[in-house]
Amino acid sequence: VSARIGGAAAWPLLAILAQAVAAEGPARDSLAERYAGVAGRIIGAELVQGRAHAMLQHLTDRIGPRLSGSAGAEAAVRWTRERLAQEGLTARLEPVKVPHWVRGVEEAELVAPNRHKLVVTALGGSIPTPEPGLSAEVVEVASFEELAALGPARVRGRIVLYNRAITASEGYGVAVVYRTRGAVEAARHGAVASLVRSLGTHALRAPHTGAMGYDDAVPRIPAAALTAEDADLIHRLLAAGENVRVQLRLGCRTLPDADSANVVADLPGREQPEEIVLIGAHLDSWDLGTGAIDDGAGVAVVMESLRLLKVLGLTPRRTIRGVLYMNEENGLRGGRAYAEAHGAELMRHVAAIESDGGGARPTGFAALTGPGGIEIVAEIASLLRSLGADGVSAGGSGGADISTLRPARVPLLGLQQDGKRYFDWHHTAADTLDKVDPLELAQNAAALAVMAYVLADMPEPLPRPGTAE
Amino acid sequence: VSARIGGAAAWPLLAILAQAVAAEGPARDSLAERYAGVAGRIIGAELVQGRAHAMLQHLTDRIGPRLSGSAGAEAAVRWTRERLAQEGLTARLEPVKVPHWVRGVEEAELVAPNRHKLVVTALGGSIPTPEPGLSAEVVEVASFEELAALGPARVRGRIVLYNRAITASEGYGVAVVYRTRGAVEAARHGAVASLVRSLGTHALRAPHTGAMGYDDAVPRIPAAALTAEDADLIHRLLAAGENVRVQLRLGCRTLPDADSANVVADLPGREQPEEIVLIGAHLDSWDLGTGAIDDGAGVAVVMESLRLLKVLGLTPRRTIRGVLYMNEENGLRGGRAYAEAHGAELMRHVAAIESDGGGARPTGFAALTGPGGIEIVAEIASLLRSLGADGVSAGGSGGADISTLRPARVPLLGLQQDGKRYFDWHHTAADTLDKVDPLELAQNAAALAVMAYVLADMPEPLPRPGTAE
Repeated sequence: VSARIGGAAAWPLLAILAQAVAAEGPARDSLAERYAGVAGRIIGAELVQGRAHAMLQHLTDRIGPRLSGSAGAEAAVRWTRERLAQEGLTARLEPVKVPHWVRGVEEAELVAPNRHKLVVTALGGSIPTPEPGLSAEVVEVASFEELAALGPARVRGRIVLYNRAITASEGYGVAVVYRTRGAVEAARHGAVASLVRSLGTHALRAPHTGAMGYDDAVPRIPAAALTAEDADLIHRLLAAGENVRVQLRLGCRTLPDADSANVVADLPGREQPEEIVLIGAHLDSWDLGTGAIDDGAGVAVVMESLRLLKVLGLTPRRTIRGVLYMNEENGLRGGRAYAEAHGAELMRHVAAIESDGGGARPTGFAALTGPGGIEIVAEIASLLRSLGADGVSAGGSGGADISTLRPARVPLLGLQQDGKRYFDWHHTAADTLDKVDPLELAQNAAALAVMAYVLADMPEPLPRPGTAE
Repeated sequence: VSARIGGAAAWPLLAILAQAVAAEGPARDSLAERYAGVAGRIIGAELVQGRAHAMLQHLTDRIGPRLSGSAGAEAAVRWTRERLAQEGLTARLEPVKVPHWVRGVEEAELVAPNRHKLVVTALGGSIPTPEPGLSAEVVEVASFEELAALGPARVRGRIVLYNRAITASEGYGVAVVYRTRGAVEAARHGAVASLVRSLGTHALRAPHTGAMGYDDAVPRIPAAALTAEDADLIHRLLAAGENVRVQLRLGCRTLPDADSANVVADLPGREQPEEIVLIGAHLDSWDLGTGAIDDGAGVAVVMESLRLLKVLGLTPRRTIRGVLYMNEENGLRGGRAYAEAHGAELMRHVAAIESDGGGARPTGFAALTGPGGIEIVAEIASLLRSLGADGVSAGGSGGADISTLRPARVPLLGLQQDGKRYFDWHHTAADTLDKVDPLELAQNAAALAVMAYVLADMPEPLPRPGTAE
C-alpha cells in the first residue's frame, strides 16, 4: 500500500500534522524548523561545490561496466574504497562471494517464414545454447495462464516468446516475472528456450538484459531478451497464420563463484556512534552499458553525501554508514552478506535509505516505518520542498539491497527519482553517463544527505516497523 | 529559399490568391472547387480501404533490408513488380548497375586511457581495416576548419573523430558532410581512419550508418559512425587531457557492381498519355534495419496511389507513372539511369513528386516550379487541409532521385512529412515497421494520389522552372 504524501492526496494528512503541531502550542520546535539551517548549508554546498557527477563520471567512463565477478566490478571496489579514504573516511571491504556469469556470442535469426536478423541479448544466469545454436518454432504468450492453456502439446520442443509490454497501467513490476521466471515455466511445459520481450519504454532495437533464474526441479533452458521491434515482428507473422521458426545461439556461461566485496564507510556519530543510519546503493551493474543510472548514480550520491557531511564538519548524534553493495543485479549476495555479518547490530540500525532509481531529479522518499514514522519523514522531507523532493509515500522496501534488513525491523526508506525515462535505458547498452544531468544528480545527493543527517541527529529515532507478515 | 505557405506565414500569399480569385469574379471554377469531389473520393477510399500499410508490412517484415546488390533488394524488385501487376498495372524493370558493398565484422574498443567497448557501424562504401584492425590515437574536431587548423602534424597517423551533433538550428544538412566527405578530408591530412558522430536525434547507443565517398587523389581510409554516447565519452576523456587511443576493426568490402533495376509502372492518361506526372520513391534501403521510414513508406504510398486511382477508375488526362528507384542510398544510380534512359521524353514530364521523408503524417509539399506554379500547388494542396497536408513551400529538389530531372526543367515536388522523430531512427537498426502509423501512412497515400491526379488532369500543366543556376 502506498499512500502518497506531498501531492494533492497529501492534504488530509498534512492537515492532521498541522493540527498536531498546533496542539503542542507555539513552544514546539519542529524538526523542520530545527534543521532548516543545516539543510540550507547542505543543499547550498552541494549545488555549488558538489562532486557527485565527477564521481559518477569516473565510475562509468574510467571503470565502465561492473557485472559481479568482472574486472570492472573489482576495479570499482578498489576505487570507491580509495576515493572515500581520500576524503578522510575509513572505508573497509566486507567479503562477498558472487556469481560469475559471462556473456558470449549472442545471435538470433528468424529462419521461417523468411530470413531476418533478430536482435537479442542473453539474460543474466542463462545457460548457453548448444554450440551451433538451436532452431525451433515459436509460440507466443502474454501470460503464464496463456502458457498453461497451451500446455505441453503446443509448447514441447518449441521456443516460448513472452510478449508482454511494460504499460503505464501495469509497469515493470507486472512484466518482470516473465523475465525472471519465464524459462522455468516454459521448460515445465517442454520448451527448448525462452524469449522475453525487452522490458523497456522506448524502442530503438536495443535489447534489455536482466536477471533470470532456474528451478532445480525443472530442466534448464537458454533464456534471452528480444527487442520490442523483433517481438512485434514475430507477433505480426504469427497473427498472419505463419509458422515462425527462430535460430538462437548464446555463448554465455557461469564460472565458479568469485571473491568480491561490499564497500563500507562510517561517518562516526558524536553521541551514540553505535546507532546507525545506513545509506546504500549497489556498485555492480549489468555489462551492456556502464551502469550510470543503475546504479552508478546511487553510488555517487551515497559517496557524495558522506563526503559532503564530512567536509562541512556536520557530525550527527548517530553514525551514518555508507554501504556500496556488490551483486544486487544477479544474486543480491551483497545485501544478504551485510545482513548476516551485521546481524548482532541490526537492532541498532535506526534507519536505512537506498538510492536505486536512477539519477533524474529526486521526488521524495518511500518509507516503511512504525506508526507515526511517515509523518516524521514527511516533516524532514519538507526541507527539500524547493528541490521538489518532498513527496513521501508509505510502504515499499527501500530498495533490494536494504530489503534484507526487513526481518530486523529496520525502518527502510527509498530515495525516489523522476522515473519517466528510467526504463528507456534500464539494463541496455545505453545506460551511460550522458543520461544523468549533473544538477539533478546534485539534487539527489543533497536530498539524501539532508534526510540521513536529520534521521541520525534527531533526538528520538524513527519508530520501527512491525514484523513482516 | 523556402517561403512557407499554409501556416501563419501564408496569410499574405493566401490574401493575394484570394484577391486573384475575386478579380476573376464568381464565374471562375477554381481547381479546388473543380477537384473537391474527386479529392473526397480518393481520401475517403484510402482511409477506409487503403492497402499502403499492408504493402509496407510485406516489404519490411517479409523482404527486410534492401541494400543495393543484396538478395533483399532483388526480392523487392521482383515483389513490387508482381504486386503492381496484380492490381492490373503493367510494371516493367529498367536495368540499373549498382554498387555492391557488404558489411562485415565491425568492432571498436577504447584501449587508452582505459579499455571500453565502443559501438560503431561502418559507413557505406568504406574500405575495411587491415584484418587484425588498426589502433591509433584519436583527434577530435567539430569542422573541416578545425581539422585544417590542426594540420598534418597533429593528424598524421591518427584517427579523426568528427564530433558534430545534429542540432535544431543546423539540422542534418550541415552535419552530413562530415559523414560523406570526412574520410577524404581526414586522409588529406594523413589520418588512418575517420569516425563520425552518429547523425541522430535520439541516442540509445545505436549507430547511424549512411553513405561516404572517396577521392581518387587522396588515400582511402576506413570510415565508421560512432554512437553519440561513445563520441561523448571520447570528448570527455580528451577534455580531461588524456591521450585517447581506439582500436577499430571493419570487415566491410566492395564487390563488383551488380545488376539491378528500377521498377516502373504507368497509369496511362486518357487524353495526353505521352505527358507524364512521375511519382517516385526509392526501393533500396540500408542494411541495418528494414527500411520502413527510409524509404519503404515512400514505396508503399507510390504503389498505393497507383492502385487506388486504378480501383476507383480515376483516369486523368495525362499519364501517372510510378517509379521505384534503386540505389538512392549509396550511388543514386537509379535516378541517373532513369534520367538517361528517358532523356527524350523528359520535356513531356510535366511534374515529378518524390516521397522520401518517412511515414509520419503528411504536412504538405515543397515545390520547385516556374512563376505562378507555387500558387497552383497551394490551391491543390488546400484540398488536403483536413489532413494537415496543405503546407506548401517553394524550392528544394523534390527528392534525391527526381533531382536528376532538374536539368530537363521538370517541376519537382517533394511530399513532406512531420519529421520530428525521423532522425531518431534514420539509417539505424531501429528503422522498422513499428515506427510507421497505419493511419498516417494512409494520409500520405491519399495526399500523394490527390496531388498527382490533379496535376495530371488539370488543363494546363505546371509552369516549368528555369534552367538551374
